[in-house]
Amino acid sequence: MINQKETITAISTPIGEGAISIVRLSGKNSIAIINKIFSKDILNFKDKTAYIGKILDSKKNVVDEVILTLFKTPNSFTGEDIVEIACHGGILITQRVFEEVLNAGARPSGPGEFTMRAFLNKKIDLSQAEAIQDLISAKNKFALKAASNQLCGHLSKEIKKFQKLLIDIAAIMEVSLDFPEEGIDDAETKSLIDDMLSILKSMQELSDTFEDGKIIKAGVSICIAGSVNVGKSSLMNAILKKDRAIVTSISGTTRDVLKEDIKLNDMFYQLIDTAGIRKTTCTIEQEGIKRSRREQKNSDITLLVLDASKKLSEDDLTFIKILNRKKTIAIWNKIDISDPQEKIDFENVVKISAKNRIGLENLYKMIEKITFKSKISNDEIFITNKRHKYALDGAISYLKKALIDLGKGISFEFITIDIKSSLKELSKILGFDITEDILSSIFSNFCIGK
Amino acid sequence: MINQKETITAISTPIGEGAISIVRLSGKNSIAIINKIFSKDILNFKDKTAYIGKILDSKKNVVDEVILTLFKTPNSFTGEDIVEIACHGGILITQRVFEEVLNAGARPSGPGEFTMRAFLNKKIDLSQAEAIQDLISAKNKFALKAASNQLCGHLSKEIKKFQKLLIDIAAIMEVSLDFPEEGIDDAETKSLIDDMLSILKSMQELSDTFEDGKIIKAGVSICIAGSVNVGKSSLMNAILKKDRAIVTSISGTTRDVLKEDIKLNDMFYQLIDTAGIRKTTCTIEQEGIKRSRREQKNSDITLLVLDASKKLSEDDLTFIKILNRKKTIAIWNKIDISDPQEKIDFENVVKISAKNRIGLENLYKMIEKITFKSKISNDEIFITNKRHKYALDGAISYLKKALIDLGKGISFEFITIDIKSSLKELSKILGFDITEDILSSIFSNFCIGK
Repeated sequence: MINQKETITAISTPIGEGAISIVRLSGKNSIAIINKIFSKDILNFKDKTAYIGKILDSKKNVVDEVILTLFKTPNSFTGEDIVEIACHGGILITQRVFEEVLNAGARPSGPGEFTMRAFLNKKIDLSQAEAIQDLISAKNKFALKAASNQLCGHLSKEIKKFQKLLIDIAAIMEVSLDFPEEGIDDAETKSLIDDMLSILKSMQELSDTFEDGKIIKAGVSICIAGSVNVGKSSLMNAILKKDRAIVTSISGTTRDVLKEDIKLNDMFYQLIDTAGIRKTTCTIEQEGIKRSRREQKNSDITLLVLDASKKLSEDDLTFIKILNRKKTIAIWNKIDISDPQEKIDFENVVKISAKNRIGLENLYKMIEKITFKSKISNDEIFITNKRHKYALDGAISYLKKALIDLGKGISFEFITIDIKSSLKELSKILGFDITEDILSSIFSNFCIGK
Repeated sequence: MINQKETITAISTPIGEGAISIVRLSGKNSIAIINKIFSKDILNFKDKTAYIGKILDSKKNVVDEVILTLFKTPNSFTGEDIVEIACHGGILITQRVFEEVLNAGARPSGPGEFTMRAFLNKKIDLSQAEAIQDLISAKNKFALKAASNQLCGHLSKEIKKFQKLLIDIAAIMEVSLDFPEEGIDDAETKSLIDDMLSILKSMQELSDTFEDGKIIKAGVSICIAGSVNVGKSSLMNAILKKDRAIVTSISGTTRDVLKEDIKLNDMFYQLIDTAGIRKTTCTIEQEGIKRSRREQKNSDITLLVLDASKKLSEDDLTFIKILNRKKTIAIWNKIDISDPQEKIDFENVVKISAKNRIGLENLYKMIEKITFKSKISNDEIFITNKRHKYALDGAISYLKKALIDLGKGISFEFITIDIKSSLKELSKILGFDITEDILSSIFSNFCIGK
């Protein structure tokens, strides 16, 4: 278990060169520790007020001129006394200030330990603590918004709403158990069932947001697939607007799987170019094709490139048959040469010329359309965390069981056990009743200094 | 010329993932600009006080929860109204906050523009402004200390001392010109000459610190030289403690020049391994030898490796002849096989076995000894900046001219002109009488956000 008695410290800004870096301390000795190495007496410094002064080494030499701010307990991020030192932002100078803080008696914080203390001191719940890391590592605007909403407590509020409704239902059942003479009639039972169904529906809807939530958080991978020489690498280059892949007219030029991060419609996508599928005896190319099949299977979206200037080949037809149509866009390439020679039965079809950069905007719109199941709005709450999804689904399955048993006329005595189990699952999202092991594993993914 | 009326903004912490990033604004509208996008009315926020609140976008959606601190004019770093926003430290979230600040009416700052404003508003002099960049980019503890001293104004104080002494001398001369009846006798002239010689001596001493100052700032390069198969790559690996260079017993294995940064005695050194010198017909290797000669010429220290188990070869003798002995350490390698077979007349000689890691500590001590001309103390002031060296040497040469002319009995009228020129050179270091062109070139080397 984390020893909260110790005063922890970390360089809280990213490592690198900039104008300012921040070294932060939290713990009951943080003010006393910094008082030892500061050029002024900080014991009477006012809360949340910036003071200029110098960090001194043990020989009273100046290490750096800094701005110091105290955030006193309990109204600080961690709930403990926090000292924030804003020093000059070089790698070495920041390291030197940090070393002096360590020498003065603080110990380096573990990953996420500042946030963990905020949680343990009940300044934030666990879903909010997790949102901090999500916010920091967010790679697109949707992920940012989802994390920000979660940090603001929107998800917590939703979970607490479910909890309150379930507690109300459990309470009615318990009352009728404690005072059997008051009984519960059929109409009341029906009303209970309706309420539980309504909660179940809301919980299921929230759980379903994970489908988009995980895409929001992880980003989307797009695989470019298709037969040999249909222009897959040309399409990749057209999207990237540079010559990343070597384009030639020799079949099987692309042997390695090429990956590039691109930004379309405010989302980050990982674009994957694969080797064409064909029968080959060349060992290197066979390996390429194997990898290409794997990439297609694992990617979120597939762009199936077809040659508009030719009849569909046997390989094309295989692709059309095996690919998941819901997440595939069929692309007629080379429309600068001719219109498509055939018709195909696909929901998502675009015509382009990768070479002449025609039709790319339509392709981008279609990619956006099939990226998300739902239309993303600014206020929607998303489950983006597997741990939350798992707990929520647990809560749902206990509630379903309670509903079935209620329909069977089983005693409230047993049904309330399931409702309580459902409540317990929900409480895991907020971090109550959670074992220390789970705590440690959550916070170990954090960066140092948070 | 920089438009100081505009309000500038920058991400002032390094770019990357961390707990905290800082977006900073400076200018007379900085408070009004942030008031547009903050969740609270900041117009009455107290100076140097941290407030928690939210940055909002144009649709009043929360972008991030932040800590906001105002540093009001004139007691701020730049002398202008500064707003500091401490937001969550992710790349994207920081960018989003920065964008909202731009949308609200600030413009992105140019390189070093915050520091430039501090200088233009006379919060710091030019040598202090330059010290900020040196402090941030310092790569070793001596560079850090030199920059810190310079930022604290130690160099400025020294320059001002010279200025005061020269002004006093010029004043005496001017008085004797204005009141010729009071005259100046020989004893007084001798006293003037003594004073000028004393100032000249101090100025020359300060100028000479540049020899070490430039090494402090730039780091030191060490070239490993020697004939074929004496163990140059083995020595490099022994120092690096890893197998960076490919070591074989085949002559001429090392063809590329290998460079590695190492830390010895709190200094950073760049270690350079070169190809052995020998007569060869192989084109690639000839190119390697050419490069190796160049590296030896340009490096600060040369380690000449000699094989202790053999007689000195013709190539060894060539090296011994051509290398600059003051900056060369002769190394007898392979003492695990035998003691050196010959004696050589070098000031710096060590015996090692790179293979068995014997004698390396002695080598490190010798490297430290010849790195610096002077013994570096914590309080010594160093000239680390070429611009300062140039101005100081200019001041010295005018003062020398004045001294010579004084000896020749030339009229004070002409001598004071040289003393004033000397003063003007000194003032360049502090940034007065400096043209805008020089200003721009100095600040363009700064990072954005300072």
